[in-house]
Amino acid sequence: MTLLYEGKAKQLYTTDNAEELRLVYKNDATAFNGGKHDVLHGKGELNNAISTLFFEVLEEEDVQTHFIKKISDTEQLVRPTRIIPLEVVVRNITAGSLARRLGWEEGKALSEPIVEWYYKDDALGDPLVNEDHIAALGVAKVEELEEMRMRALHVNNILVDLCWKANLLLVDFKLEFGLQDDGTLLLADEVSPDTCRFWDSETKEKMDKDLYRYGLGSLQAGYENILSRIGGVVYD
Amino acid sequence: MTLLYEGKAKQLYTTDNAEELRLVYKNDATAFNGGKHDVLHGKGELNNAISTLFFEVLEEEDVQTHFIKKISDTEQLVRPTRIIPLEVVVRNITAGSLARRLGWEEGKALSEPIVEWYYKDDALGDPLVNEDHIAALGVAKVEELEEMRMRALHVNNILVDLCWKANLLLVDFKLEFGLQDDGTLLLADEVSPDTCRFWDSETKEKMDKDLYRYGLGSLQAGYENILSRIGGVVYD
Ligand SMILES: Nc1ncnc2c1ncn2[C@@H]1O[C@H](COP(=O)(O)OP(=O)(O)O)[C@@H](O)[C@H]1O
Ligand SMILES: Nc1ncnc2c1ncn2[C@@H]1O[C@H](COP(=O)(O)OP(=O)(O)O)[C@@H](O)[C@H]1O
Ligand SMILES: [Mg+2]
Ligand SMILES: [Mg+2]
Repeated sequence: MTLLYEGKAKQLYTTDNAEELRLVYKNDATAFNGGKHDVLHGKGELNNAISTLFFEVLEEEDVQTHFIKKISDTEQLVRPTRIIPLEVVVRNITAGSLARRLGWEEGKALSEPIVEWYYKDDALGDPLVNEDHIAALGVAKVEELEEMRMRALHVNNILVDLCWKANLLLVDFKLEFGLQDDGTLLLADEVSPDTCRFWDSETKEKMDKDLYRYGLGSLQAGYENILSRIGGVVYD
Repeated sequence: MTLLYEGKAKQLYTTDNAEELRLVYKNDATAFNGGKHDVLHGKGELNNAISTLFFEVLEEEDVQTHFIKKISDTEQLVRPTRIIPLEVVVRNITAGSLARRLGWEEGKALSEPIVEWYYKDDALGDPLVNEDHIAALGVAKVEELEEMRMRALHVNNILVDLCWKANLLLVDFKLEFGLQDDGTLLLADEVSPDTCRFWDSETKEKMDKDLYRYGLGSLQAGYENILSRIGGVVYD
């Protein structure tokens, strides 16, 4: 039961079974690369519930993920992987750093989703990188990038659809992928309002971590709203 | 003889002939997106001479460029194009923003050249963009990007070779491409120590605009050194 890794939002522990890790969702909220930090009661539980729900839907849709099952309010069992240190971001609507980078206002629907790679390195501030940078960094092969891109766009289709039924816009999200020993690529980490932007479909009200980032209102209220909406969706 | 455009380093005038523009190299040096500015006597002449020399070699090697001929110490005749607002950067050795982005020291040879796209927009600080951003911006088609990338790598091969014979390392450089009315893609703008990094092959001494950017010594002395070295190369 060794603590393998403690990150900003989660902990990862070994279990008796070498094929399973225990992923613990913490109550910590951080933003601006650690520049803002708070402990928000109930956050871990909400993220665990939401992430579980999304992973269950993705597994049903034959997306290969690290998710095994939820084992407590704040814990999941997941498959161990060697995480590829890239954040794969998919965007449907302009917001955040994309809006700043291209000088666009927030809330513009993109005619095609935009996929971005960020090199997962806190000391560098997770910089945007392209395929040539990634080759030079040696963190993923061209075929792996192509596979991750296709998977990310597939995940996007599934989640956009699910969110739409829950009266939510999926603005953008970040995924992480990991490799198993035999080379199998799994969707890993979490899919939650910490890592996705969700807006109310009509009012465009923000319900994700931007509530905390920009001090717009109660993070927990937003996350509870998302959970009750997607929990109520009949997935077919 | 209308002034069509005045940029930070050059002016572009119409001529009597609709197929020809007059490109004037100014003595202005700028850095950090206009944060630093000086007038450096002789700079325009040096850049015109060096850029002419490079364009002549590229034309000899069947690279399609906007260059027609040098017409005075500070002027060239060039073909008019609609400039694609992308800076195409090719890198052979780590330096500048690449070293900062990836947390690498300067001077590391890359096993493969890295190609980067920057969106040419001073107000945004010329941000790094990927192919999806470019599609969303609508500034170039996928085929045009592929063509520009191939051309830029071809130009790199030619210039690396030429520089090597002149005892210079071509660390990195920026190109701009433009479209003619019939859709022909031409290498445009300039190829000079304002837009390329050149180091002495042995001592790694900098001879390009970094001299001015970082106050390392006389810009004109560096540019003269480059000109005398490449002017002396017998190109075959
Ligand atoms: N299945 C997995 N196998 C191995 N590592 C994982 C897996 N899923 C997630 N991780 C890693 O565990 C860590 C989760 O903790 P988190 O608090 O999100 O970290 P960080 O602050 O680095 O984002 C991340 O580094 C993530 O990449
Ligand atoms: N053949 C050409 N046709 C049209 N525009 C050109 C051509 N060659 C260069 N240009 C443009 O002329 C301007 C050159 O001036 P410069 O001082 O380098 O401008 P900037 O400050 O925008 O970099 C640039 O905007 C460049 O894109
Ligand atoms: Mg994380
Ligand atoms: Mg210029």
